[in-house]
Amino acid sequence: MTTRNSTHGDRPRVTILGLGRMGTALNRALLAAHYQTTVWNRTPSKVDGPVALGAERAETPGAAITASPMTVVCVADYAGVQEVLAAGGTTLRGRTLVNLTTGTPRDARDMAAWVAGRGADYLDGAMMAVPQSVATPSAFFLYSGSQDAFDRHRRALDALATSHYLGHDPAAAELWDLALLDSGYAALAGFLHGLALLDTAAVPPSRFVPLVAQWLRGMTEYMSELAGEIESGDYSAGASPVGMNRAAVMSLIRVSEDLGIDAALLGPLGTLLERGVAQGRGDQSFASLFELLRRVH
Amino acid sequence: MTTRNSTHGDRPRVTILGLGRMGTALNRALLAAHYQTTVWNRTPSKVDGPVALGAERAETPGAAITASPMTVVCVADYAGVQEVLAAGGTTLRGRTLVNLTTGTPRDARDMAAWVAGRGADYLDGAMMAVPQSVATPSAFFLYSGSQDAFDRHRRALDALATSHYLGHDPAAAELWDLALLDSGYAALAGFLHGLALLDTAAVPPSRFVPLVAQWLRGMTEYMSELAGEIESGDYSAGASPVGMNRAAVMSLIRVSEDLGIDAALLGPLGTLLERGVAQGRGDQSFASLFELLRRVH
Repeated sequence: MTTRNSTHGDRPRVTILGLGRMGTALNRALLAAHYQTTVWNRTPSKVDGPVALGAERAETPGAAITASPMTVVCVADYAGVQEVLAAGGTTLRGRTLVNLTTGTPRDARDMAAWVAGRGADYLDGAMMAVPQSVATPSAFFLYSGSQDAFDRHRRALDALATSHYLGHDPAAAELWDLALLDSGYAALAGFLHGLALLDTAAVPPSRFVPLVAQWLRGMTEYMSELAGEIESGDYSAGASPVGMNRAAVMSLIRVSEDLGIDAALLGPLGTLLERGVAQGRGDQSFASLFELLRRVH
Repeated sequence: MTTRNSTHGDRPRVTILGLGRMGTALNRALLAAHYQTTVWNRTPSKVDGPVALGAERAETPGAAITASPMTVVCVADYAGVQEVLAAGGTTLRGRTLVNLTTGTPRDARDMAAWVAGRGADYLDGAMMAVPQSVATPSAFFLYSGSQDAFDRHRRALDALATSHYLGHDPAAAELWDLALLDSGYAALAGFLHGLALLDTAAVPPSRFVPLVAQWLRGMTEYMSELAGEIESGDYSAGASPVGMNRAAVMSLIRVSEDLGIDAALLGPLGTLLERGVAQGRGDQSFASLFELLRRVH
């Protein structure tokens, strides 16, 4: 057995710019994994907590970037990233910048070009986590951009969450983030609407949770099937055809309104199913609705 | 060790009215669990397959109902149930009717009254399953109505799927069915929309499935938290406040449109979040949207 030498000099170094709730959680996770962190935040008082845990304080973004081969940025938005990096601009050369700030695919592509122009490697990231879940099994982070940088810094990134590399296009992480948020929001909205239906019979929300969890597990298994149909382009199996689903959703909308519950959340799916039937897809699988949503190339 | 006596006389008996794809799967599950089934279907040719597997053929609904203490009905709709039962009407006395036909809460309540008037016990049921999943661990059936009938016939019902009894109100199973369908449809629609976003970067749908499954598992864990907030009526924790989620959904809608993907599915959630903010719920938890959906009592 070897013992870990815990003097600062032997620990790999990571810099964190931005100590909001997520940045603070990232710092804690890295310290716990025996990294030496250097931190900077625009409001200096937010640095005190992380420093008390073992982080080193940097006085400027430039000094912070210089302290480590890899810098993680986690601020409010991409304009904020630009501002912070402009302040530490020339120090970027030869370093790796991992940008975990939330933004759009276009933001990510612009930032990647800007960073490349300053001679640094760029990874764009999206955190599928809340501050409390960082470094727990339920958190996963998405990365895209420089694969070399991802491979080189993989161990530090894995200390934050399970890491998924999505390809060279720096916009990929933000695009996947949006796709996941989309699915997540839809499920949560449906859950609240289901609770409103059950509320008409005074069913307590917590009673619904185990069954909806089981049902949604089944739905995620079904998603594999839908994905396979879309990839093959063969929608003829139709065990759950568009026409049948239209009838079910229309009935759901009607009953919801009869019960006095606003059915607006279901409206667009009803419309989509109607359009599917109107296009002659009534006997095709539910998956064929994808063809109505996708962009015409 | 005891050995099973497999002569018909020793097997408990169950009758099935309606041999569509679901009824046929129910018959198979009951035979596999060593029940002796008696079957009837309006189109007699559909009885041949089940009889070949071991079911007994009845010439009329009345003869079928008379053959077993419990009769399961699974036809196209409640009007069809009424028609079948009217044909076998007087034979219902003292028997248990389990109605697995899909309908509305009001249908269930009307049918329960009609059946009670003929001296039979009534259980209304909803099948959270597809024909292929009957009698597998992923299937579960919901029941409401006579608890006595549920307890008495529990073993036979458990041969079909995991059984959940939801209370004396015969409408409960249909109401829960609607609430689950609601959540499931929402998740599937969000999944297809997410795939359409990823399609703009030529991401194959099957690549999205493992991550969306993990993300939705996290969402179902989060649902427990939301349920707790709704039950306490305390929305002040706000780790995921309405205002922040409004900004995220509005950005999702904008980026979706920028990418050329119809964002209509997200519109009503955006509107709901706007209404939440307008009502002063910007700092409250996402769960507080429930208050905007629920019926005013």
